[in-house]
Amino acid sequence: MNSLVAIGRIRTPFASIDECPRNVRALDPAPFCTVEVFEPYREGLLALDTFSHLILLYWLDHAQPAKMVFTPPFDTRERGVFATRAPWRPNPIGLAVAKLEGIESGLLRVRYLDCLDGTALLDIKPYLPSVDAAPEASMGWLRP
Amino acid sequence: MNSLVAIGRIRTPFASIDECPRNVRALDPAPFCTVEVFEPYREGLLALDTFSHLILLYWLDHAQPAKMVFTPPFDTRERGVFATRAPWRPNPIGLAVAKLEGIESGLLRVRYLDCLDGTALLDIKPYLPSVDAAPEASMGWLRP
Repeated sequence: MNSLVAIGRIRTPFASIDECPRNVRALDPAPFCTVEVFEPYREGLLALDTFSHLILLYWLDHAQPAKMVFTPPFDTRERGVFATRAPWRPNPIGLAVAKLEGIESGLLRVRYLDCLDGTALLDIKPYLPSVDAAPEASMGWLRP
Repeated sequence: MNSLVAIGRIRTPFASIDECPRNVRALDPAPFCTVEVFEPYREGLLALDTFSHLILLYWLDHAQPAKMVFTPPFDTRERGVFATRAPWRPNPIGLAVAKLEGIESGLLRVRYLDCLDGTALLDIKPYLPSVDAAPEASMGWLRP
């Protein structure tokens, strides 16, 4: 596998891990965030503004080394890392479904990001409800 | 950024790019696929079986070099790569929302994968409808 390249930078109001919200959708209003796409990749944004929602992938470079099993906060039992969204994964790639509010000069205005300010952007994909929406999915161990 | 590690291997019935379905959800029945998680990472699967749906990230290592703009098949206009799910991205990371049908000895039985047989697995995340489901999202330029 080749290594990764940063295609942009995510700007959020969250300057430290402690400030990152546990559930950004519970914030009212959810803060606006900015995704800055670096110049060589801006051509790739053509027609992205026709979508209402995006999937963003980013690199969790402040994550601790991978831990396979741990007891999550507010939980009493051990869980495997792949049953959580914790950052300390073998490949610390973060994912968020964001609402796209506008694009101007390589800057995307979005809501519903909860990552650290300055996070490196890896990919932008259009969110396709035909294959990405599963509202009937269970919340697993997160719903007692 | 550190480089990536393969945590497993995805087995699908699709032996060539031409065999990969354009819309796997249109296949009836959708074929069962297998996700083999390598031994050092199997501990991380603890409690994953409490979820009905997963997000899988994988490495599209047969992708052509990145192309920022192109005319998609069945389309008449140029689109930016970030407005498509095409594999020729700066970071060729594929993403699928899969239905989990069972886990046994590090083997996940899933549906709704459309990638090549043998694809390297990067990450497994629980699908959380509270933050990942946006059934109201638009299909953008894909819906004329």
